[in-house]
Amino acid sequence: MQSQNHTSVILDCDPGHDDAISIILAASKISPLEIEAITTVAGNVDVERNTLNALRVCDIAGLTDVPVAQGSSKPLLKKMEVAEEIHGETGLEGPALPDEPSKQAVDQHAVDMIIDKVMASDGDITLVPTGPLTNIALAMIREPAIIPKINKIVLMGGGTFGNWTPAAEFNIYVDAEAAKIVFESGVPITMFGLDVTHQALATQETVNRLSAIDHPVSHFVVDLLKFFIRTNQDVFGMDGGPIHDACTVAYLIDPSIFDVHYVHVAIETRGEFTYGMTCVDTRGVTNREPNVNVAYQLDHHRFWNLFEKALKSYSG
Amino acid sequence: MQSQNHTSVILDCDPGHDDAISIILAASKISPLEIEAITTVAGNVDVERNTLNALRVCDIAGLTDVPVAQGSSKPLLKKMEVAEEIHGETGLEGPALPDEPSKQAVDQHAVDMIIDKVMASDGDITLVPTGPLTNIALAMIREPAIIPKINKIVLMGGGTFGNWTPAAEFNIYVDAEAAKIVFESGVPITMFGLDVTHQALATQETVNRLSAIDHPVSHFVVDLLKFFIRTNQDVFGMDGGPIHDACTVAYLIDPSIFDVHYVHVAIETRGEFTYGMTCVDTRGVTNREPNVNVAYQLDHHRFWNLFEKALKSYSG
Amino acid sequence: MQSQNHTSVILDCDPGHDDAISIILAASKISPLEIEAITTVAGNVDVERNTLNALRVCDIAGLTDVPVAQGSSKPLLKKMEVAEEIHGETGLEGPALPDEPSKQAVDQHAVDMIIDKVMASDGDITLVPTGPLTNIALAMIREPAIIPKINKIVLMGGGTFGNWTPAAEFNIYVDAEAAKIVFESGVPITMFGLDVTHQALATQETVNRLSAIDHPVSHFVVDLLKFFIRTNQDVFGMDGGPIHDACTVAYLIDPSIFDVHYVHVAIETRGEFTYGMTCVDTRGVTNREPNVNVAYQLDHHRFWNLFEKALKSYSG
Amino acid sequence: MQSQNHTSVILDCDPGHDDAISIILAASKISPLEIEAITTVAGNVDVERNTLNALRVCDIAGLTDVPVAQGSSKPLLKKMEVAEEIHGETGLEGPALPDEPSKQAVDQHAVDMIIDKVMASDGDITLVPTGPLTNIALAMIREPAIIPKINKIVLMGGGTFGNWTPAAEFNIYVDAEAAKIVFESGVPITMFGLDVTHQALATQETVNRLSAIDHPVSHFVVDLLKFFIRTNQDVFGMDGGPIHDACTVAYLIDPSIFDVHYVHVAIETRGEFTYGMTCVDTRGVTNREPNVNVAYQLDHHRFWNLFEKALKSYSG
Repeated sequence: MQSQNHTSVILDCDPGHDDAISIILAASKISPLEIEAITTVAGNVDVERNTLNALRVCDIAGLTDVPVAQGSSKPLLKKMEVAEEIHGETGLEGPALPDEPSKQAVDQHAVDMIIDKVMASDGDITLVPTGPLTNIALAMIREPAIIPKINKIVLMGGGTFGNWTPAAEFNIYVDAEAAKIVFESGVPITMFGLDVTHQALATQETVNRLSAIDHPVSHFVVDLLKFFIRTNQDVFGMDGGPIHDACTVAYLIDPSIFDVHYVHVAIETRGEFTYGMTCVDTRGVTNREPNVNVAYQLDHHRFWNLFEKALKSYSG
Repeated sequence: MQSQNHTSVILDCDPGHDDAISIILAASKISPLEIEAITTVAGNVDVERNTLNALRVCDIAGLTDVPVAQGSSKPLLKKMEVAEEIHGETGLEGPALPDEPSKQAVDQHAVDMIIDKVMASDGDITLVPTGPLTNIALAMIREPAIIPKINKIVLMGGGTFGNWTPAAEFNIYVDAEAAKIVFESGVPITMFGLDVTHQALATQETVNRLSAIDHPVSHFVVDLLKFFIRTNQDVFGMDGGPIHDACTVAYLIDPSIFDVHYVHVAIETRGEFTYGMTCVDTRGVTNREPNVNVAYQLDHHRFWNLFEKALKSYSG
Repeated sequence: MQSQNHTSVILDCDPGHDDAISIILAASKISPLEIEAITTVAGNVDVERNTLNALRVCDIAGLTDVPVAQGSSKPLLKKMEVAEEIHGETGLEGPALPDEPSKQAVDQHAVDMIIDKVMASDGDITLVPTGPLTNIALAMIREPAIIPKINKIVLMGGGTFGNWTPAAEFNIYVDAEAAKIVFESGVPITMFGLDVTHQALATQETVNRLSAIDHPVSHFVVDLLKFFIRTNQDVFGMDGGPIHDACTVAYLIDPSIFDVHYVHVAIETRGEFTYGMTCVDTRGVTNREPNVNVAYQLDHHRFWNLFEKALKSYSG
Repeated sequence: MQSQNHTSVILDCDPGHDDAISIILAASKISPLEIEAITTVAGNVDVERNTLNALRVCDIAGLTDVPVAQGSSKPLLKKMEVAEEIHGETGLEGPALPDEPSKQAVDQHAVDMIIDKVMASDGDITLVPTGPLTNIALAMIREPAIIPKINKIVLMGGGTFGNWTPAAEFNIYVDAEAAKIVFESGVPITMFGLDVTHQALATQETVNRLSAIDHPVSHFVVDLLKFFIRTNQDVFGMDGGPIHDACTVAYLIDPSIFDVHYVHVAIETRGEFTYGMTCVDTRGVTNREPNVNVAYQLDHHRFWNLFEKALKSYSG
């Protein structure tokens, strides 16, 4: 495994099953990531439930010292839209959840925490958004000086096809104006869209394999997967549950698992039927300069090995 | 082979290599199509050259009695855009072309010919557009009474991805407003987009196989394919030349070669980056009623057998 | 009066009270206009009723030799919208109308008649559209060669404010895509928008004045005005009925009645609330080259004198 | 004079000549306004210069205890655009300006100050934005709970015609997305657009009249007016300088000076030529429910009397 030493990250998320798994991966003993903060945003469910879920996942993953800051409750311009049919009423349906997390969110807005952490850094913080990009865009609007100080952005969103509409993936669709701001900011971006995240497909076989690990964290993950596989089958007719968000952290732990190409990506905000589409110029027909590293393929074998290893690492 | 008896068609086209091949397929002895007219439209090259090419192909295919009517020289609203990098300066680069065709285009505008033929019919005429949809849209604007009298439209255009932009295929992109009119008209439509036409990929192997047929028509087709394979490799980096338009006629000869699904398709005309996209709701996420039969797969073996058989049929 | 000798015109209209008055003005003995044709378009009411009304007005105005050709029944892209609340069910409510006009429309489409007349001319034909611009745009799409042969276009439409929406005037709103084609065509345009046509306000005083003329034509006009004044008061809360369309012909008879400035006008087709707006750059803030002569003011005294004189001229 | 006792206001501005005059009016002894804070936004010039100017005006107007908080440096989505041709390089060209103001801006972002003040209030704070609406929109996005707690918004912006484009006024044009958020928020809005602010036209006669007052504040205002009259003449060809922003404060001091109607206003963000237009439905043609009090007329005599009285009040 080709790891990177001490990558500082802020996980900006809306947990959400795959967000939760992503945090657990990042917090595992095989991960070189230093989690500076977890920030939350309205997305899979409303921001209050996403924050509560983030705090619960911190308890489960042992992230006692990581501050959790609540962020935006709605997109920049669009009306809010959530994905309860995928994530259930709590946003983290499936496992038994502790009623009350042991800690509370800090008394600082997510946008301010992102600005403060980035401004105080040496330019080495990587943002890892796995929900709508509202917080990141608002931070850039409020304090443009963060833009050159962000190391890079490794995000889940978009793709060459959609899931929420025929053209658009959920995270980008929820706040395409925010996505436009982020994608046009000039910060280096690596994008994990549906092309690759649909390859990170958890199935019954995955559940069987991971069930062999006997530890509360892996039990929790297995329970998440069982629920998530079922709703993805019911709603999208898929053969399993794509753990979209976990691709970002897996990439930060071992980039060589993924096949990534540097191409131009534009965000559509004007279309009648294509709002929130990431227009990925895979074949270079637009003559626009590449601006995004787009992940196209993952190595299944190595991805699930890393995943299993991460869960096992909690045991000791 | 499951053929259809005596389907009356109007071939509305912009030849163009694959349009030419499509006409030759339609005129072959294995084809049950009765070609009522060939109408031309600005597209691959300007409408005058497309008309000249249609006349030349009539000579080659022996279509002495089929009227050719010239149509629209530009899209409804957009500036004209052509595809000379694919089809060469004449629009039919490759084979030696007769200087002057033996017959001339009729003295009637394509739009009027479409209207007259459809209005005079028993509702049994199928329109087969393999270029931009300008003529068909203008006919519908000028004489809305044709709409319920068109049997169906079997067209080449669109797809779940693009070739001219990341989102849009050439025929739809050239005149998306026309496409919107046609797709929203209520006429039954079967759409052969890039998903399936890229499977109709002519390669060196195809050239070798067809070169075995010794007849002027097959020689002409082989020369077209050689040029077309090369430009598609150069411009799009493809492994061959997709003979897009021929899928429409192949389907009319033997629909069982194709895997077709009835889904909703919307035409994007407002997008900043997605103008001309056919938004195909393959997985039914929009809850809009299906309105288009979209072809997704072809049976390679049977497609090329039909193709070879058609060329051989010219020999006697 | 500063008249122009023998201006050849095609009146493209949707009568409509003010269209009817415009035709009567053009046909009067004080008019130097040679009416080459009257063409109709869907607008105030549907095209069939507009054609019937044009034929009726021909009878009343003695235009026995002028061909009337029916045109487009719907806009290029938009759904049809009519203005029955202003013009009544027949489109010409008010006066007693002859059941059947003495002549019929010719068997040629308005678009073809416009093309044929312009192509056969010495470049001296002025088009006078007083309805939506659908026919003119379709003629330009079908035969681009007419564009440099049109002498000029003197039209009623647009303005710096709207009547059908807060931003758009009815004629342009009904088919803004057609308007965009016409305004961007390069043909010299003089535009009579609401700024000036609202000054051509027929009131009870006007009715009183014109009632003094005892002739079937003036009786007819007075009856039109009575109805038109009332609906404009009811629907728009105006103090009378603005005989919009008549400004075009009045201008062609005596341009010095109007104050006209050469400025840039753009047609909005993309706005959420501003579809069909004519964006008139009165103060030159856009730095775009002027492309339209916009009428801003009329001389009331001289306008109504001309009007009265025209009606009187029918008497002998 | 019909005054209102103790209206608490936050002046959100981009001084700017007319913003400066507005502040001076609000701080005068005839004003019942309690200025809770002055917040700044990028607009006439960049936000740093606007903040510096706000601090300078505080010195001149004796607002020693009013906190000044700097806000957004750019619009939500659009590229920044400033109006230096109107306000000069400093943004307050004309009078001699003190190099360094006696106080500094507070160490809190304008958006946070607005949120904190409104949340801490009894719902009695009126927001008075006289620049682009970026700060107000961002406050609403960040803390939606302020929306029902804002008493009302009295703003300068928009109109039935434009100054920056033929359709759009500068403040709304600079950040139309922000304006859309504010106008659709449900907070009661009174809008002073160009229709009325062009009536608040300072001319040489105004300068002469106000020059008679001998006090540093009135000298300062006179010097502002002289510069502002000249640039408005040069750039817009106007007969004087419209002190747009001062209408808001004049209205809060004496609403009876203005003729205001409750109508529907929509903000255009999609148009090709109409971005930033306030579509004011003066005649009720849209059937949309009124949502904005729009000022149409001012009483010149009383407006300038109030203005003079305010300046005189500084003398004692």
